[in-house]
Amino acid sequence: MIETPYLLFLGDAPDMLAAKVAIGIRDWRPENAVGQISLPGCGADLGLTEMSLAEAKAAGAKTLVIGVANRGGIISQAWKKVLVMALEEGFDLASGLHNLLRDEPDLVAVAEATGRKLHDVRVPSVKYPIANGEKRTGKRCLAVGTDCSVGKMYTAMAMERDMTARGMKTTFRATGQTGILITGDGVPLDAVIADFMAGSIEYLTPDNDADHWDMIEGQGSLFHVSYSGVTMALVHGGQPDALILCHEPTRSHMRGLPGYSLPTLEQLRDTALPLAQVGNPDCRVVGISVNTQHMSEEAARDYLDEVSQRMDLPATDPYRFGADVLVDALAAL
Amino acid sequence: MIETPYLLFLGDAPDMLAAKVAIGIRDWRPENAVGQISLPGCGADLGLTEMSLAEAKAAGAKTLVIGVANRGGIISQAWKKVLVMALEEGFDLASGLHNLLRDEPDLVAVAEATGRKLHDVRVPSVKYPIANGEKRTGKRCLAVGTDCSVGKMYTAMAMERDMTARGMKTTFRATGQTGILITGDGVPLDAVIADFMAGSIEYLTPDNDADHWDMIEGQGSLFHVSYSGVTMALVHGGQPDALILCHEPTRSHMRGLPGYSLPTLEQLRDTALPLAQVGNPDCRVVGISVNTQHMSEEAARDYLDEVSQRMDLPATDPYRFGADVLVDALAAL
Repeated sequence: MIETPYLLFLGDAPDMLAAKVAIGIRDWRPENAVGQISLPGCGADLGLTEMSLAEAKAAGAKTLVIGVANRGGIISQAWKKVLVMALEEGFDLASGLHNLLRDEPDLVAVAEATGRKLHDVRVPSVKYPIANGEKRTGKRCLAVGTDCSVGKMYTAMAMERDMTARGMKTTFRATGQTGILITGDGVPLDAVIADFMAGSIEYLTPDNDADHWDMIEGQGSLFHVSYSGVTMALVHGGQPDALILCHEPTRSHMRGLPGYSLPTLEQLRDTALPLAQVGNPDCRVVGISVNTQHMSEEAARDYLDEVSQRMDLPATDPYRFGADVLVDALAAL
Repeated sequence: MIETPYLLFLGDAPDMLAAKVAIGIRDWRPENAVGQISLPGCGADLGLTEMSLAEAKAAGAKTLVIGVANRGGIISQAWKKVLVMALEEGFDLASGLHNLLRDEPDLVAVAEATGRKLHDVRVPSVKYPIANGEKRTGKRCLAVGTDCSVGKMYTAMAMERDMTARGMKTTFRATGQTGILITGDGVPLDAVIADFMAGSIEYLTPDNDADHWDMIEGQGSLFHVSYSGVTMALVHGGQPDALILCHEPTRSHMRGLPGYSLPTLEQLRDTALPLAQVGNPDCRVVGISVNTQHMSEEAARDYLDEVSQRMDLPATDPYRFGADVLVDALAAL
């Protein structure tokens, strides 16, 4: 569990694309984003107040989150200077980088001397159990995609926000680095040992109130041969009551797999639903989430109308047009 | 890669059930089993020559394999004495135990001093790649089950033996601890990090002669909610040309999951085949392997006839009645 709120470290990010994690925190947990701190030459700007470490501390920030991807796979000396000073000022550090904070002897030494914590969210911090498949109380919703990176996290985030606004009981359950940094907690599923994958998701989504919804962040795709095993563990470990089908219609092939075409939404439904019903016979497909970022508004609305009619399910781009129809579908279950 | 042949260590195994690994090596790689060594009170006997360490060394044994499950999760002092002496005599040690040889400081110290190797086959020894899904040359066959522990490894082993006898090119590819100890090599799939599961199976089954068959050891079941993600990685990473459906007809529920009933062989076929065809559109279900150990011979033969007719596929218990019909089906592909 990472202590909030955060000061978002942008480092020397060349552009906004490199600041994906920081943008996610700003968009989905603005109450966690006290301010931003950047180095000379930084090309990213979240529009938050630029703060010194002392100013952020005074404003209540508890953890400095590395909100950018670093270049070349190393934590540079320019970064180190700020990170060490942050520890000295009393901040914990949190990072989703491949190269770990805990592998940097100077950061480890200063963290020990100052009593601060280094959170590497790519590394599981819990010894997860093997899944037992026992029925849990409460409700769970899982986004599954025709491909990787089609908007599964944003779908769950947008739905959670709208559900909270309606007074529904709900919790976003992060299963990836970005989601964990945004919310401060979760399971880094792609780094979990194979035997414990499904168990880690049972652990993440325990018994809850009968009217509480866990919105589980999806990973990979049942149709992506590199990562389908991870997705499968979510489908069974998550024991979902509701599936949302996610799709990006302009993609010409599976992400990173040039020879592989995307399945149709019908294929996704017909594959994911029977598998989910092994773990929860009552599971239903309740809606469709389409990432329309590469389509005009008119084309997007036409596509959503067509797919909604064709599959007899509510369909939206939750980021562009809101998640209301999906939340309606969950509330009606 | 573990050096063969082996001396099989039976320790103080209370009975034959505890000696599963040693039995597997004796049955499937008799040429690797130079002899056995046991402690006073051992209740297991493989029928191999009981040897001292010196006798086994003289007979050519290179590695002492721990062929039994240990009691209480610790490597006892009685065992230690033999293991240390074996290192001193020039043997490597190999183990599939949960408690690792490498976590025993005395064994590590003696292994270093003598220049011998400690093989803990539960721990991956390779940094596996992420799967790239590229089509590989050669043929691959994967056994998939309605449940865990229904005979997938024995099916692949029996088929490999019969194929070798017919002069076909084939290699058993181990994906679990027992299989790795039997053959001396493989991927301990249940211990691989989630993101690299499918890649580890691509690594295990690389390009090969067009008429060579990799017989891939199956794991788990697509219908077993604790381990289905592991199975999924085999279905996609293995890129199988042929699937064998494995079943144990007398089981009342999924192994370790009292609330879960087994799927039918039809459900297994209809789930596994479309998923396998994502990675290899030419994949076919070629036969059925039934574990009939809890059935009379008459009941077993009746069951095999019925299921073979019903599903229009060859069916056998390869351990009891031979794997010929399954090998015929592969050869005909």
